[in-house]
Amino acid sequence: MLALSHHPFLRHLPPPLSSSSSSLPSFLTPNSVKRFGAVRASMDQPAAASQVMGFPHLPPPHRDLMVDLLSTIEARLGPHLLPSVVPSDVLSFQGQGGASRGALDIRSGGQDSSVDFILESWLHCKVPSGSLNITTLFAFLKASTDAPHLLMEFIQGSPTSLILFMDLLPRKDLVLHPDYLDEFYQNTNVDKVRQELENVPQVLPYRSSSLYIRSVLSPTAVAVQINCGAEGESAMEEIMRVQLDSVAKEIMRIWLDKCARSIKQLGETERADLLRRDTLIKNKTVEIDLAANLPRLFGPDVANRVVEAIQKAYRI
Amino acid sequence: MLALSHHPFLRHLPPPLSSSSSSLPSFLTPNSVKRFGAVRASMDQPAAASQVMGFPHLPPPHRDLMVDLLSTIEARLGPHLLPSVVPSDVLSFQGQGGASRGALDIRSGGQDSSVDFILESWLHCKVPSGSLNITTLFAFLKASTDAPHLLMEFIQGSPTSLILFMDLLPRKDLVLHPDYLDEFYQNTNVDKVRQELENVPQVLPYRSSSLYIRSVLSPTAVAVQINCGAEGESAMEEIMRVQLDSVAKEIMRIWLDKCARSIKQLGETERADLLRRDTLIKNKTVEIDLAANLPRLFGPDVANRVVEAIQKAYRI
Repeated sequence: MLALSHHPFLRHLPPPLSSSSSSLPSFLTPNSVKRFGAVRASMDQPAAASQVMGFPHLPPPHRDLMVDLLSTIEARLGPHLLPSVVPSDVLSFQGQGGASRGALDIRSGGQDSSVDFILESWLHCKVPSGSLNITTLFAFLKASTDAPHLLMEFIQGSPTSLILFMDLLPRKDLVLHPDYLDEFYQNTNVDKVRQELENVPQVLPYRSSSLYIRSVLSPTAVAVQINCGAEGESAMEEIMRVQLDSVAKEIMRIWLDKCARSIKQLGETERADLLRRDTLIKNKTVEIDLAANLPRLFGPDVANRVVEAIQKAYRI
Repeated sequence: MLALSHHPFLRHLPPPLSSSSSSLPSFLTPNSVKRFGAVRASMDQPAAASQVMGFPHLPPPHRDLMVDLLSTIEARLGPHLLPSVVPSDVLSFQGQGGASRGALDIRSGGQDSSVDFILESWLHCKVPSGSLNITTLFAFLKASTDAPHLLMEFIQGSPTSLILFMDLLPRKDLVLHPDYLDEFYQNTNVDKVRQELENVPQVLPYRSSSLYIRSVLSPTAVAVQINCGAEGESAMEEIMRVQLDSVAKEIMRIWLDKCARSIKQLGETERADLLRRDTLIKNKTVEIDLAANLPRLFGPDVANRVVEAIQKAYRI
């Protein structure tokens, strides 16, 4: 939920609704969403497993990729996460008339974990061109390490077009900290992974219209649009199942191996600086991304509920 | 001289030479170089005028653009600059055999100026595909302001291909300082200027292979390659004379109006942080860019001389 802001699909959205319905269809209740998740998730799902993993509206290659990514996070970090405390009317929600639907779960890391929280969500909304599906995985670390956070966001505007962001979000000013740049970006070869995807002919660089969000991203961020043309549904499926699948999983592997378990003794000032920077990122991205756009998708009541749940988890 | 590093043309360069000639052909002596500059420079050139403005090897559209840019800087800032103290064997220099030539001038700002120094240079070198011409304008500000520095670098590998960087280089971590981002990047509309150039069909985004250099650039940096194909010489000339000319001059105007004369009372810690960051940028860019590449172009002796002159002006 970092990169929703101002992307082209939002132009097609209706103006904010004045109220919203809270009656959910049965397939969007938390229990049924859990059931969907079981299709591809690990057999021995931990008790705290993600409650958003159903993805009832996603095209199959998008759904399979997200289920694989969330299952991997689950398998590696699940045992160290606390159960969700997100209220059920945020775990799944919908706008008036049911044209817009969403699910969001946030789980905090336990005391033994470097994870601050993991946010997983999907948003689905009908637009004149078809439907818009946005899936997000956002893993934030505590100040017990200075290792980068993880961001993955896939914004599918049609079966043939996708905007995506995948990044290890730096927690320090990289200009002032070239050692940090070396440790997490140069030595992990994460830029080569980015290049693999950008070498695909249908893939073009994409810039968020928010300069702040551009600033938050690392110099190795994958920020691209994939357009396969009107007839390109099978080409998009192929890219998602092959190149994007491989690149997304490799970025997650790098984050899980080099960042998620990292522990570093930070000095008091360094820790305070880190927390100040993390808090600003949380504040600004909620302001730019969610507070600005969720009301248009879901009406003000639902949007407020969702933003409040996020702010509570973000402790801002 | 920020973005020389690792660009594709350097693949064609010979390995480092073991020595270099110091005898310069007459057209490369400082006086004759001054004469070339007079062709387009202002009639009443200030006494401290740039000594690199001749550009004897540049294709005309590239030369005209650089002469216009340097003349504008000259007209606005020249009266507040001190005379050059760069030694004559750095004001112009060449590699063994004369296949590589260059000129570099650095002038410091006077006491009444926010300018720390202005670096202007050109490098010319024969490569198997023709010739490589690199022109640079780098304007660094003092800590009497926190306003961005100016970078303009044009790397022309052939009459039909160009890589270029133009940016207002941020002096603060933009994630921690959204107000700074608003002041110099959002409110100046500099991103719209960038978009104008990127909308030209032959223009594609370009990434430096150095992650550090990518980190130094702002989120509105123009970092592009222009390829006009084998027969595209007139298309390149047109782009350089119309779109690039307009965009480069507008970026310089923004910098001259909003940054170059800016004065801001900074707190002691803020000033120290700024200086630490500036020093790191100077150190790292010399290390990544010049110390790594100049010896290959000009041999170690000339390269050392040039790097020493720069380090002296940079006070690093």
